[in-house]
Amino acid sequence: MIEAAAARLDGHARRTPLLSSPFLDEIAGRRVLVKAECLQHTGSFKFRGAWAAISGLPPGVRARGVLAYSSGNHAQGVALAARMHGVPAVIIMPADAPRLKIDNTRALGAEVILYDRAGESREEIGAALEAERGLTLIKPYDAAETIAGQGSVGLEIAEQAAEEGVETADVLVCCGGGGLTSGVALALEARAPGLRARPAEPEGFDDTARSLAAGRILRNKAMAGGLCDAIVTPQPGELTFPIMARLCGPGLVVTEEEALRAMALAFLRLKIVLEPGGAVALAAALFRPDRIAGEAVIAVASGGNVDPDTFRLALDRLAPAR
Amino acid sequence: MIEAAAARLDGHARRTPLLSSPFLDEIAGRRVLVKAECLQHTGSFKFRGAWAAISGLPPGVRARGVLAYSSGNHAQGVALAARMHGVPAVIIMPADAPRLKIDNTRALGAEVILYDRAGESREEIGAALEAERGLTLIKPYDAAETIAGQGSVGLEIAEQAAEEGVETADVLVCCGGGGLTSGVALALEARAPGLRARPAEPEGFDDTARSLAAGRILRNKAMAGGLCDAIVTPQPGELTFPIMARLCGPGLVVTEEEALRAMALAFLRLKIVLEPGGAVALAAALFRPDRIAGEAVIAVASGGNVDPDTFRLALDRLAPAR
Repeated sequence: MIEAAAARLDGHARRTPLLSSPFLDEIAGRRVLVKAECLQHTGSFKFRGAWAAISGLPPGVRARGVLAYSSGNHAQGVALAARMHGVPAVIIMPADAPRLKIDNTRALGAEVILYDRAGESREEIGAALEAERGLTLIKPYDAAETIAGQGSVGLEIAEQAAEEGVETADVLVCCGGGGLTSGVALALEARAPGLRARPAEPEGFDDTARSLAAGRILRNKAMAGGLCDAIVTPQPGELTFPIMARLCGPGLVVTEEEALRAMALAFLRLKIVLEPGGAVALAAALFRPDRIAGEAVIAVASGGNVDPDTFRLALDRLAPAR
Repeated sequence: MIEAAAARLDGHARRTPLLSSPFLDEIAGRRVLVKAECLQHTGSFKFRGAWAAISGLPPGVRARGVLAYSSGNHAQGVALAARMHGVPAVIIMPADAPRLKIDNTRALGAEVILYDRAGESREEIGAALEAERGLTLIKPYDAAETIAGQGSVGLEIAEQAAEEGVETADVLVCCGGGGLTSGVALALEARAPGLRARPAEPEGFDDTARSLAAGRILRNKAMAGGLCDAIVTPQPGELTFPIMARLCGPGLVVTEEEALRAMALAFLRLKIVLEPGGAVALAAALFRPDRIAGEAVIAVASGGNVDPDTFRLALDRLAPAR
């Protein structure tokens, strides 16, 4: 399924570069290779899963349109992938979502339906739309085609790591529901068995690390919040967790402060823009050297949709030039 | 020479991606494709010319080491390319250069010699080192091998534009001494004759635009200064100008304010970090639509070595989220 998804993505998704800097190698004490998925269309890997899911629908079903619940990266990925397919997209967002995200999603051609988090159920609104218009729900992570699309990141890492002469390494993946992590893990199992996927999460939202350690799905205490909101989910997915449990190494957990420092170093040394949730894998690569084995580490920089004020917080972590 | 330089660069320089965003297309009124050379090693295209020049030296000459005058991107490009060749590099910098640039150049393994701009001549210091140690001077733009190395950007653009279905377009290039612009122009002449290179410069330092219009080399009134310092030179090069005069379309000139706005849009829409001088071509693509013909425009984003304070100025150009 991953290979088939990658074939459908070919020519539509970007093959993102694997970046590096001697300055980052020095901090980490080993080679650091960064898969810059922030450079993907709509600024995050989510475009891949959205494209894979939409392109995999039967044409008659696809033509009726798609539906997603999201205020973030998944919304933009679904909106653009639907527009590129010439089919309608309806995105259901909380009315208190940031104006910029609502505007961006509309600008990508989607119909945005706002709901009141306190008094309305997005699932009821969505179910009514599915019934009335025949829309298909595109899930953000717990669906086979979505996982397959994100897995194309893993196929590219397998090829690019081989080009760099790296055969054995941990591959750290920013992890929310586990769609990207499980897809990458499956791709690496088949194409680069010396590379091992490991989830990276922010402190307080380490449901996957704890679930992997416990051998069963555990939930976060807090359901949302924090700077790394892009990758916060209540718990690992029902489909993604068994894949991660079978294939992934132990989870890594970093603080928000470390995510901001990783964003600052990505700005300074790689010239890429990361959001806090998209920087946790790089933060783990740089600041958890004792938890990682091997001469190289690969970090997936999963997204860059950050507002200027949060980015200023990251820049504040850089010492002044003099 | 460009093809030979590209062959030597293969596996050492990065093939940088050609990025795009529907939001930028809307601003420009046409497709905008951005060659993200800020993602090159050391954060600018200068690594290519430095590698081409150093790798093109006879081995016995190369082994004695190389020399450059620079406080900026050329210094870092030469330092890293020399280190990757295992040969010494001496960089002569003004003593009042920013501490970060001095430290970065040293961290890349170069010996940095500081001189007093007021009382000393860098050329005399350099000539003495050439004589004493047998070092070879690596010029920043007015040398055939340097131009050939920068021309590899043009070969990649020719291929990547064809992949995007773009056969006719202006290719806007951030222009200082003209090494990158002339190299790109030569590569496009051979490989993509429907693509035309055009220099982009900041207001007040439009020596190349005026020289092209006059048909002879003209100088800037100011010799240095401004936010776009990375691409400020006194005049076009003796080697680069005749190439540009034969092949380039008219120059484009933008304000510093427009360069900062282009940096902000590159942050928001492309997730790349640009320095002001590296953003002037994108600024021209976005804000000079009436001076450009065709359904698409390609802008070379030549570098991203910007300090946090200047980047904050760019972020200030973005409206708040609400």
